[in-house]
Parts: sequence; structure tokens; C-alpha cells
Amino acid sequence: MIYNIQIKVMPLKELLDPQGKAVLGGLQNLGVTAIQDVRIGKHITLQLEAASEKDARDLAEQACKKLLANPVMEFYEIELVN
Amino acid sequence: MIYNIQIKVMPLKELLDPQGKAVLGGLQNLGVTAIQDVRIGKHITLQLEAASEKDARDLAEQACKKLLANPVMEFYEIELVN
Repeated sequence: MIYNIQIKVMPLKELLDPQGKAVLGGLQNLGVTAIQDVRIGKHITLQLEAASEKDARDLAEQACKKLLANPVMEFYEIELVN
Repeated sequence: MIYNIQIKVMPLKELLDPQGKAVLGGLQNLGVTAIQDVRIGKHITLQLEAASEKDARDLAEQACKKLLANPVMEFYEIELVN
């Protein structure tokens, strides 16, 4: 069966996020001053073939560990949508 | 009140996503062959001060239109989490 998986990869909360800080500055320059914090990460969608929901999750987990996320600087959340 | 907003900005479905294609190739080289498609976009979290849920959504919408998303190549989805 084909599964659609959504993965969110974000910089760890303890770390400074320079890209987010730059965007926050940009928004304030554009007059959007109510925004207090911005953090930017990656959003990845995978389409994969697996026998069960658990297999699909395991595959996504494996992809995150092997390539998609850097655990030193990032955390990830996997969500199955079907 | 402080609202936390999650925004997903992805390349339009009709467009090629070279970054996703590169990651797909990388995963296959690493032996994760069950994955058939990868698309990569941005995940943005905003923290903002607003009087109501509707105001918070409007502010996020405004931020997307002014800076966060490029409507020629990307679509976005705003989600309020609190």
C-alpha cells in the first residue's frame, strides 16, 4: 500500500536559529510587529510503499536517521496521513 | 494572548522539486528503496501576540503573503496550535 508521510525537521529549541532571526527582522521591517519569534526548519513529504502503517513509520524513521535530519542540531516529527 | 502558529510552505504540485529529487536519489543510494517520491519545503513556526484566533490567523496570512511564501512557486498552509 502507498503511504503519505509528513515529516517536520526543526532546529533544536536550545539552539539559535539564525534564519528565523533574519526572517523576524524582515517581518518587523515590513511592519508586521506582533510576531515575537520565528523558527524555520524543513517540511518533507514522502510517498512510500509499505505493508503496514508500522512498516511505513519505520521506513520514514530510517530515512530521517540516515539522511533527512541531523540529530546534533535538529529534531523531527513523523506524521502519517492517508 | 500568545499564539503558536505552524506554517508549511511547499513547492506547488505541478512543479519539479530538484531538492526532493536529489534526496530521493540519496535515499536510494543508502538502500532505502521503498520510498517513491520526496518533496521538500519549509516548516515555519511563529509566536505572535493577537487579540483573537482570527487575528492570529490573519497576521500569519499577512506574513506569508509579504515574506514567507512565493506564490509563483509555493503554496502554504497555516495551522494554529495552542
